[in-house]
Amino acid sequence: MSPVSPETTSVGWIGTGVMGAAMADRLLDAGYALTAFNRSPEKVEPLVQKGAKPAASPREVAEHSDVTITMVGYPDDVRQVVLGDDGVLAGARPHSILVDMTTSSPALAVEIAAAAAERRVRSLDAPVSGGDVGAKSGALSIMCGGDQEAFNALAPLLDVLGKTIVLQGGPGAGQHTKMVNQTLIASGMIGVCEALVYASRAGLDLETVLKSVSGGAAGSWSLSNLAPRMLKNDFAPGFYVEHFLKDLGLALAEADRMRLCLPGLALAKQLYNAVAAAGGERDGTQVLVRVVADLNGQPWGTNGG
Amino acid sequence: MSPVSPETTSVGWIGTGVMGAAMADRLLDAGYALTAFNRSPEKVEPLVQKGAKPAASPREVAEHSDVTITMVGYPDDVRQVVLGDDGVLAGARPHSILVDMTTSSPALAVEIAAAAAERRVRSLDAPVSGGDVGAKSGALSIMCGGDQEAFNALAPLLDVLGKTIVLQGGPGAGQHTKMVNQTLIASGMIGVCEALVYASRAGLDLETVLKSVSGGAAGSWSLSNLAPRMLKNDFAPGFYVEHFLKDLGLALAEADRMRLCLPGLALAKQLYNAVAAAGGERDGTQVLVRVVADLNGQPWGTNGG
Repeated sequence: MSPVSPETTSVGWIGTGVMGAAMADRLLDAGYALTAFNRSPEKVEPLVQKGAKPAASPREVAEHSDVTITMVGYPDDVRQVVLGDDGVLAGARPHSILVDMTTSSPALAVEIAAAAAERRVRSLDAPVSGGDVGAKSGALSIMCGGDQEAFNALAPLLDVLGKTIVLQGGPGAGQHTKMVNQTLIASGMIGVCEALVYASRAGLDLETVLKSVSGGAAGSWSLSNLAPRMLKNDFAPGFYVEHFLKDLGLALAEADRMRLCLPGLALAKQLYNAVAAAGGERDGTQVLVRVVADLNGQPWGTNGG
Repeated sequence: MSPVSPETTSVGWIGTGVMGAAMADRLLDAGYALTAFNRSPEKVEPLVQKGAKPAASPREVAEHSDVTITMVGYPDDVRQVVLGDDGVLAGARPHSILVDMTTSSPALAVEIAAAAAERRVRSLDAPVSGGDVGAKSGALSIMCGGDQEAFNALAPLLDVLGKTIVLQGGPGAGQHTKMVNQTLIASGMIGVCEALVYASRAGLDLETVLKSVSGGAAGSWSLSNLAPRMLKNDFAPGFYVEHFLKDLGLALAEADRMRLCLPGLALAKQLYNAVAAAGGERDGTQVLVRVVADLNGQPWGTNGG
């Protein structure tokens, strides 16, 4: 397969939420001809203003595209958008490429790869990490699984979207790698929140504590980037709790399927369930500190940050 | 108080294990006159070869020193070395300074500060993070609690030992900050080990996975520095499991005393208990990955690194 390019490759984009819209926008800026679909059509408008063509269904997107990219919400959405009657595979041209960038089930990625192959469509699962900031700046980590030739051909396009782009293996390997990523974040967040609540209870000044612990063996991205927001009671979403809960659920379901015992991951899910129960689904993941503080009879913001 | 200096300040050093010996060695290199004691006298020999004077007891060290530093094993050792009949405070000169750099109990630090004050001795608790590498290179994080004036006066000496040196508050605040540090590491290590075992079970190539997840929101010191050792089956101690178990026990005891619910910290202690049960006390903390793998019926090194 020859590499994609703005001159020769038509791209379809399905799913224009916060992440999808920012990523599709970068492809338009890079010069790709884009056909776009979203369940709520008004969310496609800003892309259409910049030259994208709107389509009436995922199927119609795929009929016009050499490469079709999906970035939707939940695995059920992926299933419908890709495998449904009006889905991508119903319209996809032979020898086209399908890329699902939704964080979704590894098993579904395998199923989609098989269905795509039957129609002579190559497929990749390619979930991302890096949030809306990374989506806007093209600095995402893109974790890929699937067809090596398709991955190679897509390199120029993925370079527009991400900075760290790695093929992890066959179908589902990208999704599995995203689960690894979220497993790391999950226990790390517990540590950050427990550490801050301990520090607060012990009467320490939290900003001063961060000076001692952020630069050494206890350091992490979460500690450097999210703990300061916790101290300012800034719970605005970089990454939504409801999306993290989805990811933790997917990771635990895969763990169950593989008969894995991951008590830290399970604990994180329980604590984020408590965040949701307290109404925090639309907050950023750093709001976990409130639940850990509440658990300790010490409302955050009084002794906290 | 005037700042300490190699020209005017005699230093006493008690406890010449791996960390203590490296730190005392740096003070000798900086030109400080040193009197040293260790329970096993042969461990003082290398310092004596470089000009340190050996002493027969902590009391004798203190009798000769303007600043006496302790770096021993457990809180019971600190109690004996500082408060015992032949301890530091039995010999300490009025207006001298006592610095306990052992990771020890915050409550004991408060008790020592009070006993020191009665003898007109100023005291600091000043545990460190950074391991033997940081001790040798003078790059430790030193977390201090206690007397502000003593902290100010000691600045030139602490600068020889550490890079990040912060007074966190009154007596015990240094120890509490170290507990915060270990609480962060504890849950972070669970995340790293569970993530690698998940990746291994999912059939991913672990080195390739680290390329995708190390640089972003899942990144941490442990992931960047210890995961690669796990993959090489390198369990040599940077930090001994038995010392980490001590620290986790101290942190949980303090949490109990403060009535804190810290489930991640408690889980880490349980898992490290399993490491000890499997004979890993003299391995480095990264050996936890073996226990998490064993827990999953997947001996590390077969599917793992």
